[in-house]
Amino acid sequence: MKFAKHVFVCTNQKEAPKKSCGAEHGAALLDAFKQELTQRGLQKEIRAQRAGCLDACAFGPALVVYPEGTYYGNVQVADVAELVEKHLVNNEVVERLKLDF
Amino acid sequence: MKFAKHVFVCTNQKEAPKKSCGAEHGAALLDAFKQELTQRGLQKEIRAQRAGCLDACAFGPALVVYPEGTYYGNVQVADVAELVEKHLVNNEVVERLKLDF
Repeated sequence: MKFAKHVFVCTNQKEAPKKSCGAEHGAALLDAFKQELTQRGLQKEIRAQRAGCLDACAFGPALVVYPEGTYYGNVQVADVAELVEKHLVNNEVVERLKLDF
Repeated sequence: MKFAKHVFVCTNQKEAPKKSCGAEHGAALLDAFKQELTQRGLQKEIRAQRAGCLDACAFGPALVVYPEGTYYGNVQVADVAELVEKHLVNNEVVERLKLDF
């Protein structure tokens, strides 16, 4: 597998009043992931990148981590360090953000 | 897992002369996947969607299938039916398009 973990962050923007993850918020999340991974020297093993709609609009801002296929919802920039430390590095699911898909 | 297979198709466009998968080509591939999946009634179990750069620019147009993490390169619209039939439905890797990551 090319990456030990591959994180897809939704940056899809729908027109109001439809709920969506949002381009701006998605970009901010992605920047936070990239910064955290680079600081830890993990950017070659673990990739975080943008994606279109992950089919979880009502629960966004959303992302999915593969190969596990774990979906997280209502993710804020302040949650990124915990997601990296717990899930991406230590394989522990962050239950408070996990979506039950 | 929300989807039995989750296909991320790169739609990233870089400025020439840099090689990239390309927005137009990626969109055409994605349309072909969606059409094929819908025709087979598989659109709820198997998702194909757009993604940003998959870090395989030199081998594009590229896509990755999760949870396996199988990368395919130089994918053309004419290859989509085979990818759906072999890989997504029957779990057989399409060796001639597989990238060795």
